[in-house]
Amino acid sequence: MVVYDLEKIGSQAAHAAFILSQLTTVQKNQALLALAQELREQAASIIAANETDLQASQKLPSKFLDRLRLTPERIEQMAVGIEQVAQLPDPIGEVTRGWVNHAGLQIVQKRVPLGVVGIIYEARPNVTADAAALCFKSGNAVVLRGGKEAIRTNLQIGQILRTALQKLALPMDAIQVIRDTSHETANQLMQLTKYIDVLIPRGSSRLIQAVVQHAKVPVIETGAGNCHVFVDQTADFAMAEKIILNAKCQRPAVCNAMEKLLVHEKAAAEFLPQVAAKLIAAGVELRGDAQVQQLLGQQVIPATASDWDTEYNDLILAIKIVPSLTAAIDHINQHGTKHSETIITNDYQRSQEFLAKVDAAVVYVNASTRFTDGFEFGFGAEIGISTQKLHARGPMGLVELTTTKYQVRGTGQIRQ
Amino acid sequence: MVVYDLEKIGSQAAHAAFILSQLTTVQKNQALLALAQELREQAASIIAANETDLQASQKLPSKFLDRLRLTPERIEQMAVGIEQVAQLPDPIGEVTRGWVNHAGLQIVQKRVPLGVVGIIYEARPNVTADAAALCFKSGNAVVLRGGKEAIRTNLQIGQILRTALQKLALPMDAIQVIRDTSHETANQLMQLTKYIDVLIPRGSSRLIQAVVQHAKVPVIETGAGNCHVFVDQTADFAMAEKIILNAKCQRPAVCNAMEKLLVHEKAAAEFLPQVAAKLIAAGVELRGDAQVQQLLGQQVIPATASDWDTEYNDLILAIKIVPSLTAAIDHINQHGTKHSETIITNDYQRSQEFLAKVDAAVVYVNASTRFTDGFEFGFGAEIGISTQKLHARGPMGLVELTTTKYQVRGTGQIRQ
Repeated sequence: MVVYDLEKIGSQAAHAAFILSQLTTVQKNQALLALAQELREQAASIIAANETDLQASQKLPSKFLDRLRLTPERIEQMAVGIEQVAQLPDPIGEVTRGWVNHAGLQIVQKRVPLGVVGIIYEARPNVTADAAALCFKSGNAVVLRGGKEAIRTNLQIGQILRTALQKLALPMDAIQVIRDTSHETANQLMQLTKYIDVLIPRGSSRLIQAVVQHAKVPVIETGAGNCHVFVDQTADFAMAEKIILNAKCQRPAVCNAMEKLLVHEKAAAEFLPQVAAKLIAAGVELRGDAQVQQLLGQQVIPATASDWDTEYNDLILAIKIVPSLTAAIDHINQHGTKHSETIITNDYQRSQEFLAKVDAAVVYVNASTRFTDGFEFGFGAEIGISTQKLHARGPMGLVELTTTKYQVRGTGQIRQ
Repeated sequence: MVVYDLEKIGSQAAHAAFILSQLTTVQKNQALLALAQELREQAASIIAANETDLQASQKLPSKFLDRLRLTPERIEQMAVGIEQVAQLPDPIGEVTRGWVNHAGLQIVQKRVPLGVVGIIYEARPNVTADAAALCFKSGNAVVLRGGKEAIRTNLQIGQILRTALQKLALPMDAIQVIRDTSHETANQLMQLTKYIDVLIPRGSSRLIQAVVQHAKVPVIETGAGNCHVFVDQTADFAMAEKIILNAKCQRPAVCNAMEKLLVHEKAAAEFLPQVAAKLIAAGVELRGDAQVQQLLGQQVIPATASDWDTEYNDLILAIKIVPSLTAAIDHINQHGTKHSETIITNDYQRSQEFLAKVDAAVVYVNASTRFTDGFEFGFGAEIGISTQKLHARGPMGLVELTTTKYQVRGTGQIRQ
């Protein structure tokens, strides 16, 4: 693992990926259980490495340090997480389609691993174990490039997982942590088309955009969520209030939290004052357009044009009154990030129109945007939430870490 | 269409894409039939534009001019091609998965259009009509940037199709041909992430690599095929010969043509001299490794290291003798372009091993590599052959021009 040569890391990963692609589900699951066990047994060494990382980052904000900090409980969670991945169905080998063509060729399309997955992430050491387990289960080698503040922790986790693989006579290069956390090395990783099949950035929208802008390796864009809730005139206001408080306040820093509230003008006078009071009581700063200001007065700060395109990731909510369902849909399609969008309505026709016309990974009727999540969807895991349209859209589980290959069985067919 | 402002073209395309995404299958099919009819009626104007293009390119090689030339028959083929696309099943709206999650949310994953598809291609005006029809049927707006030598022809075809859409009160910006064929404009198109959802380059590997290297818009890499046929010791030699002649000679310039022949050392002495004679009779230049040279003498040119990585797209074949199935698989995985690979064998176990271990879009047993094609696969159409692993792999039909969106129906669920 003490290797700075990315070409070498890439080549090792590709070699390991080939071996991984041929393992059975039982072999992979047994290995995952061994990885979890090794993490538990070596927990003290991770805590020690993490302590050094924390000391080096003392001056950073406490929110940041909280994400960086590992405790025995958090390491136990990591181990349990790996064991849960072992329990998930293996997507590899699934026949997704199959038919006989005009020439009598038997064609099947089968799920196979992508090959080598690169993960670029920030100083959250739990991602190291989590991503390694998901990639391993789906038969992919992984190259991990985490934030520099967590480097000692990440290397220690990586070393433990690699040692566990080695004990099982499995390729330790299936899991590699890049020791050099410089931007130059990250940039090199983004150009390594020869070995890396896909890059998945996880973290802030700044990180993700940097990867999208610089990578030549295919990227799955994850993350940014400027999510809207639209309260239609026919909404059940009690339901709307409950959903809005959940979507905004339950965990405001995440991408599936609500950032904008649109209210039909026929619902505004009755609905807005009551929900505004609750939001303010929950500590939410409200910003509003002119109509909202008229209705709520000093309770709201005037919203500026840039508010409608901003993902706050904080206890801030911008509110807009719209004259129609069409105006709501237009606003969402213009300002949204195609992540998660909700209508609260009791009108069948309008629910259908919202579902059909809003362009987003997940479109909801009468539910919180917070459900856009691999675990909530029932995937049992999540490698990220794709906000792009190619390959995967929405929460990504194991299936999204696969590609397919056609296997064609003939009896000597040639093309006419 | 007389617009050089790519931002404007992109914005128009996005607007048209929204309208297209809401059309019914019947509306799309009727429009396609009208497009075909309009092409027929205006064929003379296309021939005239094409004549001007041909005159301006007089000095180019005849092979090039042949691809550029349109005849009344070729225009009729275009029209028939569009009518065939109208007959294909519409992938839009298909529910690919659906379930109820732990909270009682009804989740369905539905096929929806990608949005705006950019096509960058060379001087083959048939691609203009072909790609426009496939994108239209799959509910996508298309922005076409063809080779400069075909610009008048492309613009005329584009104008005819746009007029037909206009007559039907459909958005003519669903089909746009970029008039400015400069490299600068092509580069701009590759950066237009705001409006273009996917770029598909079609043409030479030089063109494709330029797009892969420069684009920030997600790209589907198509094309390069350094395809192998491996003749195992248990092969039916008559079958092997038939497949090799077909894969190499039927259409040597295309990406699914065979470029390399690997022969098991136990089969070489008996098999190689006979197939070599037939290949030479068919006008194929043979290149070989040292063992092949020993066996075939003056009939083969010595192969150099670079031969194993070269896609000739011509009547040239490099031959290598390998000591084992494993050596064949290793050679293919190291030098192949992950396009189409064939084993000729009668050994069950070895056929399975080849299918499992070769990493390519299409892996064959006892069939010609030439079947890697949307029409031969039975898709009824082809927008290209993907050699990448993300989103689509192998021949791409209408389904590969779609993405999905989750529609989630709730009854007031919030996340705990």
